[in-house]
Amino acid sequence: MSRCVYEHKVQYYETDQMGIVHHSNYIRWFEEARVDALDKIGMGYKKMEEAGVISPVLEVHATYKTMTHFGDTVKIAAAVQKYNGIILEMTYEVRDKETEEIRCTGSSRHCFLDRHGKPVSLKKSHPNMDQRMRMLLLYQTNNEK
Amino acid sequence: MSRCVYEHKVQYYETDQMGIVHHSNYIRWFEEARVDALDKIGMGYKKMEEAGVISPVLEVHATYKTMTHFGDTVKIAAAVQKYNGIILEMTYEVRDKETEEIRCTGSSRHCFLDRHGKPVSLKKSHPNMDQRMRMLLLYQTNNEK
Amino acid sequence: MSRCVYEHKVQYYETDQMGIVHHSNYIRWFEEARVDALDKIGMGYKKMEEAGVISPVLEVHATYKTMTHFGDTVKIAAAVQKYNGIILEMTYEVRDKETEEIRCTGSSRHCFLDRHGKPVSLKKSHPNMDQRMRMLLLYQTNNEK
Amino acid sequence: MSRCVYEHKVQYYETDQMGIVHHSNYIRWFEEARVDALDKIGMGYKKMEEAGVISPVLEVHATYKTMTHFGDTVKIAAAVQKYNGIILEMTYEVRDKETEEIRCTGSSRHCFLDRHGKPVSLKKSHPNMDQRMRMLLLYQTNNEK
Repeated sequence: MSRCVYEHKVQYYETDQMGIVHHSNYIRWFEEARVDALDKIGMGYKKMEEAGVISPVLEVHATYKTMTHFGDTVKIAAAVQKYNGIILEMTYEVRDKETEEIRCTGSSRHCFLDRHGKPVSLKKSHPNMDQRMRMLLLYQTNNEK
Repeated sequence: MSRCVYEHKVQYYETDQMGIVHHSNYIRWFEEARVDALDKIGMGYKKMEEAGVISPVLEVHATYKTMTHFGDTVKIAAAVQKYNGIILEMTYEVRDKETEEIRCTGSSRHCFLDRHGKPVSLKKSHPNMDQRMRMLLLYQTNNEK
Repeated sequence: MSRCVYEHKVQYYETDQMGIVHHSNYIRWFEEARVDALDKIGMGYKKMEEAGVISPVLEVHATYKTMTHFGDTVKIAAAVQKYNGIILEMTYEVRDKETEEIRCTGSSRHCFLDRHGKPVSLKKSHPNMDQRMRMLLLYQTNNEK
Repeated sequence: MSRCVYEHKVQYYETDQMGIVHHSNYIRWFEEARVDALDKIGMGYKKMEEAGVISPVLEVHATYKTMTHFGDTVKIAAAVQKYNGIILEMTYEVRDKETEEIRCTGSSRHCFLDRHGKPVSLKKSHPNMDQRMRMLLLYQTNNEK
C-alpha cells in the first residue's frame, strides 16, 4: 500500500450530542493526514510557508459511511490524486484502526499562492518542491499498478 | 429570493495562520444555516430529536471561491434541493454581507434515523414533519420560477 | 448596566456527547464578547492588528455553574476589570437569555505586543487606544456605583 | 516523575491569525491528557459513561507562558491534585517536546453525576472506580516525595 497512513485518536471534544464525531472534524482529519503526507516527502506546510508559498483549499468533499465514536482510533490514508504544478488533488480514506471498517472517504483540491496571494506554478517558482510532488505521485502510481 | 438567509459574524477563533477563516468552519456554517432554515419551518433539530429522529450527514461538499477574514459578516443562503421523505439534500451559498461577493458554495445530504439507528421514512413515521418539508420545497420551487 | 452584552446562539457543533455545550466553547464565547466590547469603543482586534498591536491571552479562567444546551441563546456580559496600559483584565458572565439563569463566569488577562513580539505600553505607543480603554473603564466604574 | 505524560502534535486548524495556537485549544489538550491519564488507570470516560457516570467540568484555569506553533509537538503532564470521591481536581503542564520549554500550566475541577444529573459519591456508588482514583493519587504522592 503506497498511501501515507496517519492515525488519529478520537477526542471527547470532537463528539456532538448525537454521541458520534461531528462531521466537520473529518475535514480537519483530512488536513492532519495531508500535512503528515506532505511532511514525509519534505514538503510540509511549514517548509512551504517559510518558502513563501501557501496552499489554500479550493474544494473539499466527504462521504460519511459509518459513525466514529469517542475513544476509537482511526487510520486516515491520504494519496495524491492529481498534481500538475498548479493544482494538487488528494483523496482520503478513514478506517477504524481495529476493525478496518470504512468510516469516511473524501477529497480536497488545492492551489499554490505566493506571499501576495497570486497563484504560482511550483514547477517554475519552486522546482525542488515540484520534483518532490511528482516523485510522490510517481511512487504511488507504480505501487498501485 | 425564497432561500432562508442566515448571518454569521466571523470570529477570531475561526481564523488560521494564513490569516483567513479555516476551511472546516464553512462546514459548520452550513450547519448553522441548515438548523436555522429547519427551525423556521418548525422542524428544528431540537424538535426532531425530541420526536426521536436524528438526521446525520451522509455527504458534504464545499467549493471555496474567495477568502473570508476576521470581522467580516457573511450571509449563508440555505435551500432544500431534494426531499423525498427518506433523503434530504440542501445547498448553501456563502456571500459577504457588505459586498455580496460570493465566498463559498456547498451542499449536504442527510437521512433520518430513529432512536435505534434505523433509517426511517418521515412520510410514514412522522407525516407532520414530512408535510412541512414538502411545503418548504414547494414554496422554494414556486419562488424560483 | 454598564457592561457590554453580547448574544450567542448555541450551535449543534458546540455540543458534546454529554448532550451539553463542551466547556472549551465558553472560552471562545469569552473571546466573542471581548472582541465585541472592544469593537464598540473603536478598539477592535482588527484595528489593533492594523496598528501593529496584538493582544495575546496570558490567563483564562472559567467557573461552570449550570449547563447550556443546543438551541439556547446566551448573553455574555464582558467588563474591563483592570487596565493600566500594559495589562488588560476582563471578566465575563454568561446567562441564559430567556431565564437569566447564570451559566458560567470567567476572566481573562492580556498584554499588548508589537510586530516583533515585544511588550508595549499602549499609554506610550498608542495613546489614542489607551485613552479609549481608560474611558471604558471609567464609564463602567461610574455606572457600577 | 509520576505524572501521566501525553503527546499532542499541533495541527494547522489549531492556529489563529496571530500565527500561534489559539488559546482555547489548550483547554482541549488538558482534556486529551486527562482522558488519557484516566484511561491508563482503567477509569476512562468511556468506561465511566458506560457505568452511568459523567464527569462534567466545574472549573478550568490556564496560564499561558510561551507560544506554541504549528508543527510543534507538546507534552502534557496531567496529575491528580485532589480526589475525595465527590470532587476531582487535576493539574496540567504543557511543555515543548524538544526544548522542554514550558508553554502553559493549568487546572480543572470536576464532579461526578449519575444518569439523572444527580451528584454521586464514587466512594459509595462505584467503590471500584473510587479505589483506582485513590491508588493513582497515592502513587503520585509517593513519587513526588
